[in-house]
Amino acid sequence: MSLIVQKYGGTSMGSPERIREVARRVARFVKEGHQVVVVPSAMSGETNRLLALAKELNPDPDPRELDVIASTGEQVSIGLLSLALMNLGVPAKSYTGFQVKILTDDAFTKARILSIDDAAIRKDLAEGKVVVVAGFQGMDAAGNITTLGRGGSDTTGVAIAAALKADECQIYTDVDGVYTTDPRVVPDARRLATITFEEMLELASLGSKVLQIRSVEFAGKYQVKLRVLSSFTDVNSTDMGTLITFEEDQTMEQAIISGIAFNRDEAKITVRGVPDKPGIAFAILGPVADANIDVDMIIQNASLEGLTDFSFTVHRSEFKRALAVLNDVVKPATGAREVVGDDRIAKVSLVGIGMRTHAGIASRMFGTLARENVNIQMISTSEIKTSVVVDEKYMELAVRVLHREFELDKEPAEEKMKA
Amino acid sequence: MSLIVQKYGGTSMGSPERIREVARRVARFVKEGHQVVVVPSAMSGETNRLLALAKELNPDPDPRELDVIASTGEQVSIGLLSLALMNLGVPAKSYTGFQVKILTDDAFTKARILSIDDAAIRKDLAEGKVVVVAGFQGMDAAGNITTLGRGGSDTTGVAIAAALKADECQIYTDVDGVYTTDPRVVPDARRLATITFEEMLELASLGSKVLQIRSVEFAGKYQVKLRVLSSFTDVNSTDMGTLITFEEDQTMEQAIISGIAFNRDEAKITVRGVPDKPGIAFAILGPVADANIDVDMIIQNASLEGLTDFSFTVHRSEFKRALAVLNDVVKPATGAREVVGDDRIAKVSLVGIGMRTHAGIASRMFGTLARENVNIQMISTSEIKTSVVVDEKYMELAVRVLHREFELDKEPAEEKMKA
Repeated sequence: MSLIVQKYGGTSMGSPERIREVARRVARFVKEGHQVVVVPSAMSGETNRLLALAKELNPDPDPRELDVIASTGEQVSIGLLSLALMNLGVPAKSYTGFQVKILTDDAFTKARILSIDDAAIRKDLAEGKVVVVAGFQGMDAAGNITTLGRGGSDTTGVAIAAALKADECQIYTDVDGVYTTDPRVVPDARRLATITFEEMLELASLGSKVLQIRSVEFAGKYQVKLRVLSSFTDVNSTDMGTLITFEEDQTMEQAIISGIAFNRDEAKITVRGVPDKPGIAFAILGPVADANIDVDMIIQNASLEGLTDFSFTVHRSEFKRALAVLNDVVKPATGAREVVGDDRIAKVSLVGIGMRTHAGIASRMFGTLARENVNIQMISTSEIKTSVVVDEKYMELAVRVLHREFELDKEPAEEKMKA
Repeated sequence: MSLIVQKYGGTSMGSPERIREVARRVARFVKEGHQVVVVPSAMSGETNRLLALAKELNPDPDPRELDVIASTGEQVSIGLLSLALMNLGVPAKSYTGFQVKILTDDAFTKARILSIDDAAIRKDLAEGKVVVVAGFQGMDAAGNITTLGRGGSDTTGVAIAAALKADECQIYTDVDGVYTTDPRVVPDARRLATITFEEMLELASLGSKVLQIRSVEFAGKYQVKLRVLSSFTDVNSTDMGTLITFEEDQTMEQAIISGIAFNRDEAKITVRGVPDKPGIAFAILGPVADANIDVDMIIQNASLEGLTDFSFTVHRSEFKRALAVLNDVVKPATGAREVVGDDRIAKVSLVGIGMRTHAGIASRMFGTLARENVNIQMISTSEIKTSVVVDEKYMELAVRVLHREFELDKEPAEEKMKA
């Protein structure tokens, strides 16, 4: 008998028929002898509907009241799923965030979980009940309702699995696992049976939107075994999706590269002809940070006659605001020659734990792109990731040729032999 | 400066535009210097939508889970209304039932309020905030979410007014007060400026669905001044609706009759030819009560040759079940000759505190109906009410002629002179 936490996303809970399907799946695990805690999201579309109502009444809504409103979506889901389970003869009981209770800080709309009181859940499980806990929500020390932000139900699932020391946290979604890259771009993309937490973190933050990044961090911190599965397979399917493992668990050889992430979410800005002296990076990025604009990649070119070019990327939605800050504040303050920007770029990243031990990955990547005449505009590397910025029109091409070059369509065993 | 509790019903909260209108009305009272606590219902249609979802997943839904689901409607309303108030520059803060906290018993779907902790509300009011409290919901001692049943937001409003010793509890609805009878049946029906609690209780229980009966009992018990107003009048309207008063408050002469209630909700059953002996009423009604069927009017005819006829009314929806119990259980046990029923009846009731001191009201009622050839099938009287059962096809006629006979279309002053 295992203790399993199952999280179901919004599309899995999208209609009464889908909720019945979730109940049947949970019932199967109960029948197999497992103890199950279920964490459902709001029915798909519900959170957006509620937030649109809020925005209609107040274009600048108070975050505390937003959380009061948004948290109702998951509250409806726990009641409905409990009813569906009981209808199958499975004893079930629902808990809201405050009933558990899931204590968070008071950062409304993006709260962080501080602690979980698992006593009631354990008692119900011992009595043979399925426990259904609302995802996405909690309460702060003052008794206010809080939400964890978009994708927060993943975090709730992992946090409850951690508190209960569950054997596994299963994240059911509308995809059946983590792929080497987006199958819509590369039809040969292959589903990974396992992936490490670190790789998953890089893939999640780079735009593979399978799991919310904070939930992955949480799982890594508390060593929760996380599995991504589809809720759209047959209820009795033995498909096990993708298991997200700790590196320490890995006994078999890893592929060098696990996947390729890409996005068009960023824009590039270059400040040209700034004096190359200490403090210049802060002089440029300080005002940008003050304007609450996040910066991703940063590069500084070699100095030429005491002047240097400084480039960085921001989220595309903040491109114009960033340009304004640079022109209005930074340019006069630093004496920069000009500020230029380009919002038609894409970022393509190779991710793989094997990079740590295998040299030459970056140069093999650059060579592959060069053969296709794809110009690289920026480069940034970390221990398990190499990212390049290219013209957005080359994005799909770059992903496809890199996928082929690193043989991601083949099982890791073959890759290993070649490596 | 007064402390006012305002309750807004589902149609008053029915759309973002309606919610903005409620916010404007609340803002007007704040501007006039009052402290205001607002108790909104769920947006109209929302509770039904949620309950339909629940029923779809479980035809016999667990009441605890029903309450988890149904209570979200009001939770959305408090958040939206708070946002609308803030958008007008009025400081506001929302509270769910458990946040207040409104402690109830654990009778899910029909819980009763046991206590209200008003400390947080008082503190917010003192800080100049409008406090927005979710109607219809509370929590039991174990921390479960409960609801008070249909119309429970009225009860929440009154209970909070009682706890705060508010100057007045204003119930905003889609009618502008309490009428002498339904204006759809009698176009001359007149709105009452005041009505006593006892009359209101009789009118409410007889089907004048302006206020939930439990809220009126609650107001009477805690001496809360209750006022029924329309939320569809202009925001600056000085119309004061109908005030529900305590008899002790009445200085001016009351009309003898305040109103006429009527409904088609009941069915009549007669058990013919039962032995007229002690215990026969219990022998007949005991099995009916055991089947959880409520009985309203009861009459026993004079005995004839040791046999008597015994008639009573039940809710029309339980008519067939009641007939089955009587034929299967009561008839064999008592040796009754036959059981007959009629579900095409209507009940018409005169209600008025003046009946206590004015004789002859009942005979005047019967005479009026006789002149129109309306046959009276059953009669029941209480201190401030006289009810008759008639063929349902005569219901509207009976209400109209009685309304005219007792001059309910005229102001009470004139009525007094005639009486």
